[in-house]
Amino acid sequence: MQVLKLKRLAAVLAIGAGIATPSLAQSDVGTSPWGPDDELGRLNMMTSRSRQEIMSMASADKVYDLSVEYFVGMPSWQAAGDPHYQIWMTHTPHGTVIDDPMNVGDEMNAHVGYTGSAISMYTHSGTHIDAFNHFGLNGKIYNGFSADEYLGDRGWQKTGAETIPPIVARGVLIDVATAKGVPMLGDAYRVTRADIEMALRIQNTDIQEGDVVLIRTGRMQVYEDAGQYMANPPGLGLDAAKYLVEEAGAMILGADNLSFEAFPSESEDNYIPLHTYLLAQMGVPIMELVYLEDLAKDKVYEFAFVGGSLKLRGADASPMRPIAFPLKSGR
Amino acid sequence: MQVLKLKRLAAVLAIGAGIATPSLAQSDVGTSPWGPDDELGRLNMMTSRSRQEIMSMASADKVYDLSVEYFVGMPSWQAAGDPHYQIWMTHTPHGTVIDDPMNVGDEMNAHVGYTGSAISMYTHSGTHIDAFNHFGLNGKIYNGFSADEYLGDRGWQKTGAETIPPIVARGVLIDVATAKGVPMLGDAYRVTRADIEMALRIQNTDIQEGDVVLIRTGRMQVYEDAGQYMANPPGLGLDAAKYLVEEAGAMILGADNLSFEAFPSESEDNYIPLHTYLLAQMGVPIMELVYLEDLAKDKVYEFAFVGGSLKLRGADASPMRPIAFPLKSGR
Amino acid sequence: MQVLKLKRLAAVLAIGAGIATPSLAQSDVGTSPWGPDDELGRLNMMTSRSRQEIMSMASADKVYDLSVEYFVGMPSWQAAGDPHYQIWMTHTPHGTVIDDPMNVGDEMNAHVGYTGSAISMYTHSGTHIDAFNHFGLNGKIYNGFSADEYLGDRGWQKTGAETIPPIVARGVLIDVATAKGVPMLGDAYRVTRADIEMALRIQNTDIQEGDVVLIRTGRMQVYEDAGQYMANPPGLGLDAAKYLVEEAGAMILGADNLSFEAFPSESEDNYIPLHTYLLAQMGVPIMELVYLEDLAKDKVYEFAFVGGSLKLRGADASPMRPIAFPLKSGR
Amino acid sequence: MQVLKLKRLAAVLAIGAGIATPSLAQSDVGTSPWGPDDELGRLNMMTSRSRQEIMSMASADKVYDLSVEYFVGMPSWQAAGDPHYQIWMTHTPHGTVIDDPMNVGDEMNAHVGYTGSAISMYTHSGTHIDAFNHFGLNGKIYNGFSADEYLGDRGWQKTGAETIPPIVARGVLIDVATAKGVPMLGDAYRVTRADIEMALRIQNTDIQEGDVVLIRTGRMQVYEDAGQYMANPPGLGLDAAKYLVEEAGAMILGADNLSFEAFPSESEDNYIPLHTYLLAQMGVPIMELVYLEDLAKDKVYEFAFVGGSLKLRGADASPMRPIAFPLKSGR
Repeated sequence: MQVLKLKRLAAVLAIGAGIATPSLAQSDVGTSPWGPDDELGRLNMMTSRSRQEIMSMASADKVYDLSVEYFVGMPSWQAAGDPHYQIWMTHTPHGTVIDDPMNVGDEMNAHVGYTGSAISMYTHSGTHIDAFNHFGLNGKIYNGFSADEYLGDRGWQKTGAETIPPIVARGVLIDVATAKGVPMLGDAYRVTRADIEMALRIQNTDIQEGDVVLIRTGRMQVYEDAGQYMANPPGLGLDAAKYLVEEAGAMILGADNLSFEAFPSESEDNYIPLHTYLLAQMGVPIMELVYLEDLAKDKVYEFAFVGGSLKLRGADASPMRPIAFPLKSGR
Repeated sequence: MQVLKLKRLAAVLAIGAGIATPSLAQSDVGTSPWGPDDELGRLNMMTSRSRQEIMSMASADKVYDLSVEYFVGMPSWQAAGDPHYQIWMTHTPHGTVIDDPMNVGDEMNAHVGYTGSAISMYTHSGTHIDAFNHFGLNGKIYNGFSADEYLGDRGWQKTGAETIPPIVARGVLIDVATAKGVPMLGDAYRVTRADIEMALRIQNTDIQEGDVVLIRTGRMQVYEDAGQYMANPPGLGLDAAKYLVEEAGAMILGADNLSFEAFPSESEDNYIPLHTYLLAQMGVPIMELVYLEDLAKDKVYEFAFVGGSLKLRGADASPMRPIAFPLKSGR
Repeated sequence: MQVLKLKRLAAVLAIGAGIATPSLAQSDVGTSPWGPDDELGRLNMMTSRSRQEIMSMASADKVYDLSVEYFVGMPSWQAAGDPHYQIWMTHTPHGTVIDDPMNVGDEMNAHVGYTGSAISMYTHSGTHIDAFNHFGLNGKIYNGFSADEYLGDRGWQKTGAETIPPIVARGVLIDVATAKGVPMLGDAYRVTRADIEMALRIQNTDIQEGDVVLIRTGRMQVYEDAGQYMANPPGLGLDAAKYLVEEAGAMILGADNLSFEAFPSESEDNYIPLHTYLLAQMGVPIMELVYLEDLAKDKVYEFAFVGGSLKLRGADASPMRPIAFPLKSGR
Repeated sequence: MQVLKLKRLAAVLAIGAGIATPSLAQSDVGTSPWGPDDELGRLNMMTSRSRQEIMSMASADKVYDLSVEYFVGMPSWQAAGDPHYQIWMTHTPHGTVIDDPMNVGDEMNAHVGYTGSAISMYTHSGTHIDAFNHFGLNGKIYNGFSADEYLGDRGWQKTGAETIPPIVARGVLIDVATAKGVPMLGDAYRVTRADIEMALRIQNTDIQEGDVVLIRTGRMQVYEDAGQYMANPPGLGLDAAKYLVEEAGAMILGADNLSFEAFPSESEDNYIPLHTYLLAQMGVPIMELVYLEDLAKDKVYEFAFVGGSLKLRGADASPMRPIAFPLKSGR
């Protein structure tokens, strides 16, 4: 295991060496250390061994559901005019008696009660993961793929959501709200590196390379009240993100809020700097609207994270319903 | 474990006693043995112990992805006028320069390349699980909830997809196509109990109570050709389903085809008898469009099935991307 | 013409006798004086002669456009969770080069630049007309058609928008805002019968049987600012509506605001009394979001109203882009 | 009137001189004779005088409805994956009792029966008019506007459907099917210039500058059977279109079929040459799916065409429900 860790660390350092400082200086997208065709970025850190390591420690005694519900009126990103979540009935037991869409007759429709429904949504609705193509820099996305060459009318031919593999990895909860002694971080509060370090210390949690790191702001407590949930959410700061990625080696970052980062931006020349840093420069997927309340209540800070996002070809994000298995007691 | 098995068997027999024959005779919905408020049906068979049992045998060495991709033109249930899957761009790097939806100015939009997309679909699109309310009988759904009392314009207030828990269970693949020596079952072929028994014998696989049982017809091989995939799919027969549920104790049934069962119906007074039998009478969820090709190729007939469907409040089905962990070798 | 007027008046009185007072007392839907199968209500007042009468006086010198634009972010009825207007590109010149959806090759796609788009909307979006089935009373709609018998999953089989004929009728603008000496009526202001009578007197306009009567609140001036347009719109009061319908003989009522009437309701036992009075009891269609600014500026109070709403089968409303021809000068 | 005609003819010749032959040779978009900012093309031919001329001859005795109905399963352009027409209920009298979306309580919802619905469609669905931006050449649309500069994620900032004025013009029906002695032109039949000239001769109809010219193939008779309607429709040929536009001076061309032109293309280097010729080179809007059956039955070959398409900002087409007033008898 020591060997593995060193090997992984080397990979992470390679990532750092290859991308971080110079790229940021140039405000340009990152080049994948996994080669010019790579579309997975840090998801490459997930290996047979890394999966086995965490799953061997996991207990299926309890399963934590990390996903929120979808419903008409739910919070979603609406500031740029994207469609709100909708669900509607395409068939109901009574309606089919009236319409008979299957040509089976009234009696049959009254006997066999058919219910069908359809949905529409912005792909970033509910608990979801962002694909790298969600934010790029200067006409390109992570690893240099250009919109000119790869963006069609049905999405990107590179790094689309269908390329995101099922995630099986060590998960870590950082309960910043609790560490700071508040039920919920304040409006637009920006979580600092010091906050992260303090929370980890209080929790006695370490971060390992390849982790899915989930930040709890506490905002999820007002999820059912869309207006309150969406207004000025707290979020992660850039120095905290850099620490988690470049020093701690996180594979995925996520949080329980709408936008992951806080607004307005802390950078003058970039209105959404954490998204471009993580997605476009570092190859780190972002998860948003992750439900962390049960984990926090039970103080489950370390767990096996298992989840698969819908394989939406070409999409820049995808809904997902991940679960957490706590680790076996006695560890 | 013997004790557990007996206890489970008793539960299954209770289910049978409580529901099967009399209900069917009356062509009426089933009553849950888990009480009048129950919305989970056989999903109640999933317990802390059942999860631990299968997960303790699972290996994370390899992960099988059981989900298909979503794309414009993909196969879906279209016979009753339901919407085809759509994805569209709501933001593109170039489009935001023209539209400036965030009011950040041309230069900023040219620098920060924003891609967003939205989707719409029938909830039964792609790999998905049917909720009990998808099909009922005589105005009611499983466990007696009536449309009059519980069906609103945004779905059912009972057994909606949000009530489906994350599934962690033993999974079994029954590769009927291979057992019958064909790459793909013929058009509208109806899998019999004898087919199932033969396949299990050939595979040397047993079914245990609480299993997720997945039937392979081979139809998935033509998934990318929607017309071919959708036309007259083979499916399970009613006697086979009854065997799997009432004798073998399956918790969930699924298949790699569009409609699970074959058409036209084998019952004169019911155009979709397997759906009503499983969903409305037995409380057994159905999975459709499950990708089984890799499992079949590797002859992985027994595995840990892990997956969570999107929590679409009130919905009669929900997309999901389940995974399979093979069992540890040496078992 | 005197004969015609008397005949029409008799019809109107018949309508009144048949419906108004008793029905209202019973809070029940109205019965059409045009027979038990009638789905047109007062639209029956439009005849060959009535059309000829107004068109013979109309001048095509100028055409007034009475419709608003549809755009992402436009005002719409959102209080009950209905979908906001969306438009998206399904094909773009560049995107087709990437996707090649027609299988014609890169060169062809670069040469022939294909643009396609799709829309989705609540049917009451933009300038539109309400069908009678939009609001009913006690399980029925105008003329006694019941939801139980006629409402399917794709709309009503009675009085759907496809039954609304092209409208060619005398139109009257009642500029209440100007008559009251304000640019725009105040928030939630309820227009009274006295306001109507005063405005007609100031304008020197009469109302004739069969007219399309359009009320100007002035709210349209802030249409591009959705928040301002939607918040607490002024609207017509019930006594004013009754005057226009039962005494003046209007065929259609309309206004330049979002909801036609003002909220909260002036009736304790009905949250939307003008809609039920007009649509369900009197058979008078309602038009909303009518653009009246140009007519008002030019003081065109009398005109030929010509417009056809989209024939959306089963729908409870339909978008429309009506026009007004002013009357020949010298009249 | 003679003067007017000559003046118009000069304009038409100017159009021809400015655009037709040279542009086609270069396979490039046309330049508007109405100036570099022009977005209306031949719609500029519609003037106060042209409207008055035709409306003064029109009779409102009868109104012809030129629009088809919208319904689930209706024909539409589906070959490139565009969304089929959908309508769904957002509110029903019974559903609101269950959901209470307005928070008014059960009793109120049972008393006031609320029906709402929503639609989605490709903008080219049903009777509609194509905007110039629907098809361009070499990166530009009519009058040289480029996609690079003017195409955003919500459509074109030039020649969007909102720029199309209400159409009031002389309309001409050319009943090619009847002229050729068939109820319906054959599959993929391409109407020639000779067909047009023969039909006009038989009908004794002339075309005048500024006309809306509508071609009847007879295909509309099978509109309710989407499969039959959509398969290999007959359409106009390029020489016929050139005759109508460059010699006869038509302002708008339309037809009763799905695609206006016939496929496969008669041009090797352009898969849709009539669309690019009319929209991108000549500035002539195209109307499709126009309902001409009643006009044909009554042999109304000349009429006043009045209609307004929905003002969908940025769209490349827009639904419309035009009407035709026959001309006064004795003409």
